[in-house]
Amino acid sequence: MKLYDGGRAPNPRRVRVFLAEKGISVPTEQVDLGVLGQKSEAFTAVNPLQRVPALVLDDGTVIAESIAICRYFELLHPSPPLFGTEPKDVATIEMWQRRIELHLLFPVAHVFRNSHPAMKDMEVPQVPAWAEANKPRVLDFLATLDGHLKDNTFVAGGRYSVADITGLVSIDFMKPAKLAVPDALTHVRRWHAELSARPSAKA
Amino acid sequence: MKLYDGGRAPNPRRVRVFLAEKGISVPTEQVDLGVLGQKSEAFTAVNPLQRVPALVLDDGTVIAESIAICRYFELLHPSPPLFGTEPKDVATIEMWQRRIELHLLFPVAHVFRNSHPAMKDMEVPQVPAWAEANKPRVLDFLATLDGHLKDNTFVAGGRYSVADITGLVSIDFMKPAKLAVPDALTHVRRWHAELSARPSAKA
Repeated sequence: MKLYDGGRAPNPRRVRVFLAEKGISVPTEQVDLGVLGQKSEAFTAVNPLQRVPALVLDDGTVIAESIAICRYFELLHPSPPLFGTEPKDVATIEMWQRRIELHLLFPVAHVFRNSHPAMKDMEVPQVPAWAEANKPRVLDFLATLDGHLKDNTFVAGGRYSVADITGLVSIDFMKPAKLAVPDALTHVRRWHAELSARPSAKA
Repeated sequence: MKLYDGGRAPNPRRVRVFLAEKGISVPTEQVDLGVLGQKSEAFTAVNPLQRVPALVLDDGTVIAESIAICRYFELLHPSPPLFGTEPKDVATIEMWQRRIELHLLFPVAHVFRNSHPAMKDMEVPQVPAWAEANKPRVLDFLATLDGHLKDNTFVAGGRYSVADITGLVSIDFMKPAKLAVPDALTHVRRWHAELSARPSAKA
């Protein structure tokens, strides 16, 4: 198999952190997003939607979408479980994984893509008013998350999971979007510091 | 357990169609989105993010997020499998389920929420330029999807799956967003007609 990776972008990093937590090594090819390598003819033949990461299996099957790739590796290498094992834990992890995407990762991405000068050829047209509309949504969700993390070491299911990975990359993605976690949200900051201290965070 | 449902909105419908395909009946309470019932004090105590659907288990655990709820029922009632069984099928279904969300359901929702007069108290502020920016994205993805469905009866894994359910509700959601599937996309139209003809589509 081969993993098409994409440097510092949040979605490829989710997969790398996931693989590091599992202790899995996969042959990798870097797609240079800086020169729009994901839009090249060669990569478009791999993923017509022109997005990284993408995993090509030995039979030629292409699995795109970070979480689909992570789930594939979870089934091949169940330990340590990062999507949960019992139905209630599986559902709780999926709930938080999606809450963090919908209310943090995606709004942060909207801010970044619609306000950062480096994105003007990628996000056409940029809509600055949409970037502005998403800033308070990010802060509102972080406040809710802070209340949840007051009583929880990890975000879901009592142990480290894929939902924490999405949280880590979302909060790190706030920096290029010129957003910051307010000092008052001490539980979010504690959680982010702990996730960042794990060796996998360097992936 | 009790399912908090929400009428015609796309996400609650995903869960209802899923349960109908499984032949599962769950005690249900309707939340009236027309009077912003999801923002009531009672429902906010169930889901602080004020969104339906939400499933409350007998031990009080709350599972929110449509796909988390569906996956919970998949684990309790594996047959017929709607998330796949073998790793490659599971990953392929997850890929398409997410592609349809990211490139169809969410862009259609952005158009609806940022342009429809009925949403002006829900989407604050409405950003009409963002609605406009999403219209061509919906059509671009539908064209890609049409090419895929030319050679596939269902969208993923060779059989009906949760990815088809997300497709059905996404295309039906285009109507209130004042979008239409172009006549030329005959494979998308065939697929949507077949999904709509299943008894579960009435759920």
